Amino acid sequence: MLKNIRTDLAVECLTDTGPSLPQGVRRDTETVGQTPITRVSIETPEGAKAIGKPVGNYVTVETAPFHRFTSEFEDQVQIVGDELKKILPDGPALVVGLGNSAITPDALGPEVINLIFATRHLQQDLSSISGFDNLRSTAAIAPGVLGQTGIETAEIVSAIVRELKPCGVVVIDALASREIARLGATVQISDTGIAPGSGVANHRKELSQKTLGVPVIAVGVPTVVDMNTIAEDLAGEQPITLPDKGRSMMVTPREIDTIIENAAKTVAFGINLALQPSLSLDDIISLVN
Amino acid sequence: MLKNIRTDLAVECLTDTGPSLPQGVRRDTETVGQTPITRVSIETPEGAKAIGKPVGNYVTVETAPFHRFTSEFEDQVQIVGDELKKILPDGPALVVGLGNSAITPDALGPEVINLIFATRHLQQDLSSISGFDNLRSTAAIAPGVLGQTGIETAEIVSAIVRELKPCGVVVIDALASREIARLGATVQISDTGIAPGSGVANHRKELSQKTLGVPVIAVGVPTVVDMNTIAEDLAGEQPITLPDKGRSMMVTPREIDTIIENAAKTVAFGINLALQPSLSLDDIISLVN
Amino acid sequence: MLKNIRTDLAVECLTDTGPSLPQGVRRDTETVGQTPITRVSIETPEGAKAIGKPVGNYVTVETAPFHRFTSEFEDQVQIVGDELKKILPDGPALVVGLGNSAITPDALGPEVINLIFATRHLQQDLSSISGFDNLRSTAAIAPGVLGQTGIETAEIVSAIVRELKPCGVVVIDALASREIARLGATVQISDTGIAPGSGVANHRKELSQKTLGVPVIAVGVPTVVDMNTIAEDLAGEQPITLPDKGRSMMVTPREIDTIIENAAKTVAFGINLALQPSLSLDDIISLVN
Amino acid sequence: MLKNIRTDLAVECLTDTGPSLPQGVRRDTETVGQTPITRVSIETPEGAKAIGKPVGNYVTVETAPFHRFTSEFEDQVQIVGDELKKILPDGPALVVGLGNSAITPDALGPEVINLIFATRHLQQDLSSISGFDNLRSTAAIAPGVLGQTGIETAEIVSAIVRELKPCGVVVIDALASREIARLGATVQISDTGIAPGSGVANHRKELSQKTLGVPVIAVGVPTVVDMNTIAEDLAGEQPITLPDKGRSMMVTPREIDTIIENAAKTVAFGINLALQPSLSLDDIISLVN
Repeated sequence: MLKNIRTDLAVECLTDTGPSLPQGVRRDTETVGQTPITRVSIETPEGAKAIGKPVGNYVTVETAPFHRFTSEFEDQVQIVGDELKKILPDGPALVVGLGNSAITPDALGPEVINLIFATRHLQQDLSSISGFDNLRSTAAIAPGVLGQTGIETAEIVSAIVRELKPCGVVVIDALASREIARLGATVQISDTGIAPGSGVANHRKELSQKTLGVPVIAVGVPTVVDMNTIAEDLAGEQPITLPDKGRSMMVTPREIDTIIENAAKTVAFGINLALQPSLSLDDIISLVN
Repeated sequence: MLKNIRTDLAVECLTDTGPSLPQGVRRDTETVGQTPITRVSIETPEGAKAIGKPVGNYVTVETAPFHRFTSEFEDQVQIVGDELKKILPDGPALVVGLGNSAITPDALGPEVINLIFATRHLQQDLSSISGFDNLRSTAAIAPGVLGQTGIETAEIVSAIVRELKPCGVVVIDALASREIARLGATVQISDTGIAPGSGVANHRKELSQKTLGVPVIAVGVPTVVDMNTIAEDLAGEQPITLPDKGRSMMVTPREIDTIIENAAKTVAFGINLALQPSLSLDDIISLVN
Repeated sequence: MLKNIRTDLAVECLTDTGPSLPQGVRRDTETVGQTPITRVSIETPEGAKAIGKPVGNYVTVETAPFHRFTSEFEDQVQIVGDELKKILPDGPALVVGLGNSAITPDALGPEVINLIFATRHLQQDLSSISGFDNLRSTAAIAPGVLGQTGIETAEIVSAIVRELKPCGVVVIDALASREIARLGATVQISDTGIAPGSGVANHRKELSQKTLGVPVIAVGVPTVVDMNTIAEDLAGEQPITLPDKGRSMMVTPREIDTIIENAAKTVAFGINLALQPSLSLDDIISLVN
Repeated sequence: MLKNIRTDLAVECLTDTGPSLPQGVRRDTETVGQTPITRVSIETPEGAKAIGKPVGNYVTVETAPFHRFTSEFEDQVQIVGDELKKILPDGPALVVGLGNSAITPDALGPEVINLIFATRHLQQDLSSISGFDNLRSTAAIAPGVLGQTGIETAEIVSAIVRELKPCGVVVIDALASREIARLGATVQISDTGIAPGSGVANHRKELSQKTLGVPVIAVGVPTVVDMNTIAEDLAGEQPITLPDKGRSMMVTPREIDTIIENAAKTVAFGINLALQPSLSLDDIISLVN
């Protein structure tokens, strides 16, 4: 078994387990339009142990690569929105964008927050101001990263959840994948929240229903691969000689700026559609620009 | 009396009051090196009413214009640091950068936060990691603006103050001035916190010892002038015909990008010097870059 | 007569000339959809002298303010495209974006260049690569500003025109207006090229058919107002006391970042539509993103 | 022999050739302060053929990693400046920054241009304006990339060289390296210009004394590694199974934003020191900020 493989994608944890899945794990696939979707359900603690991810549901949407604009953009936003709608609890929502806005491959979360239609402050005179009725109360925050703030993200989010008392939290984060081919070409949606040690920065504390007290939906896009993972995958059984410096490196595609921009639009517009079913995609684009 | 004048600078509130100051108001001036400093003290409720600012102390440092790099940079950082040291309480500090990072003249606060040396998370093994002893615990956050987050800044800051229990808060904000000549050429430091309705966005809720329970130091740089203010000042007694659209406009210098960059460095490095007296400016520049 | 008024908009040069226009000057207005369009034609040297602009045609499109996204966006792109189509010569085109990408209100030109669909290098295997036939050869360059490059923009553009031999040049530049209300709310299109001393930087050399040897179309959006102009306009006949520092200042709206982004999209997509009549706006958005 | 290895660094072309170098190739190493320097001289066409790089001199400065600010910064700027001084011809200079400013790992060239002290336009009244005598005439341009401009970089540079007639050209470009450990930790300086097919974009035309008629100095920093190269290196003799999509990918470190910022400062300040021996590093920092 390979020891140094690192991935935040549930779908990649099944790769080495052969044709028969571990007990307590299910996988289904379908294609919506042009877009393949894989659903992995981890149903038991045994399944969770075998896979190395918490019990819950993980949906992987294989998008057209985000490194350029494609005609499939609107369809993909709709798919992300539809998948989120299935698992989002009703009531006021808090959207949290994790990551460091100054490091492009880690900036997915903050970029998504810039595109969320926040409505919580409009509640009093909503229809008069915006011309739209029945908006769901939405708050959105990018809390920064520990190295910049000196505060654990989990502390900030907990404090804000206590203050706002939302019915559900959506957490966005850039992810690490095992396969280079998945970088900037996949959206993972799960109902498990964020596990410790995931994300690009690799030292997150848990953000989940257990720690926050309300359902936590996680949305992520893989933007980096760990060099150890590449080395291990390529080398297979033979000894590998990756130098120390390379070993601690994470690599990202050359077009990462465009990937983050397009991935953020897909994720943010999908979240907005799921939160505000009365708005069209055109409404949303006008409202957040 | 002029009705539409708007300014966040205490020193500008004295302009129209003639040579004799209102009762309960004092003004002192000195020059440190090349840099003029004015101290306005509002000592009584009568003084506060006459001036239109809360009781407290306001220090105005007239810097070389921030629209280009000058040889006075290091001296000015030192002056800002020295002034802050006089009024900062001992103990753990929280630095809060108000404003919208996507609107350049309002981005002073978030830009300063990017340059604050956060140390709160280093407390356990501080000297081993950083090589520096006796660092003061510092946290730093840019909470975003109401229109983006849906959450009043005051709510976020209150929640974080309850969680972190700092001994003092430093709040940074871009300001409106009356005189165009002051834009990007002044730092105001006060021990009064942030008054309602100040700042570029003009709809802040109060952030003060009264609302947060600990001393709140405010640091600001004027980056905009209200068009009403310009019109009123220029027109004097005669009727003015500024069109409606212009009336709601705030104007800012053409070189605002450079002004924000250099002002953020001056303010952030000054705060770092005040918070960490054991560090030199060179240490700080290395640590935050 | 007011001496210190500065504007790059022909339509604003008519303001002080009363109801009867100078000899050799015509003005027509129409409204397309929601959008007012004014056409000023300077037909004789006398008219040019009276107005202070070269002989030629100036079209002013009064857009919805660019500081936020509006539903009129697509219509306005179409209008800009249609006006350009009327005056663009056939054959290979060169698009030149003037201005300094590091100073936001001066960055319109470089931002437009980022959104131009350059095709000159695709000529050999055009239909195979892009799936589109009959594309007009288009080159696009942002030459930078004198202070950054040490080279007059006119020298760079002349050298490239000699090398590429286009049939026409389109030059984009940020402009100074007289009225604050026009900032970020107008597109001016003219067939006269760029006059010396226009633009935000105020020290351009001429770029015109006379200096480049081919027709030069100029497209601009006002993004700054000179403080002298504001002072003069407001003060009228009475003496004004604007301090020296303010006198040399140009002011710009607080939302200049968004204005530049939306103005650049409107101008660039309009140019693309005019240059490539076989493409739809949707095609263009996909191709340049 | 490995077929798919790609590197722009001469020093890496020696790796597979064992302890004895090919005929016509010399390698010397020294350490200046903390900084190792390797000089590779390709002296004959046979050497050039064996190495796969043009005849000429290649200096590799192994810097402290650019992903964070280090105390060695000033020393390294000085070393780059000293190496350039040895090979720069006297007389007016043109500095050319290759690459795409919108793709961070390819943006080294444009970022360097923003930090070059251009003086060509100051020649008339130089000492009166700047207070500095004996400045060398310097022009600086970032011509953009073929996909954005539709014009081969070589065409633009040739046209400008004909117009300006400099005595020497300095070309800056982001490079591909073989070893991940070298990314953002090396500066290569050569007197050979830019070879076809080098750089991040991998389709440059030649920029050399042969094509431009004056000496061409190239300065580069490796910022990407080709995935093929990683795969080939790790896999050695065994067959490799890198998926198609990964094969065409270039990877870059996660901290690429900071790497480009610090590498651009090191390269630009080094060039400024070499071009203007009468200026100190402090002078230069003030002049370009």
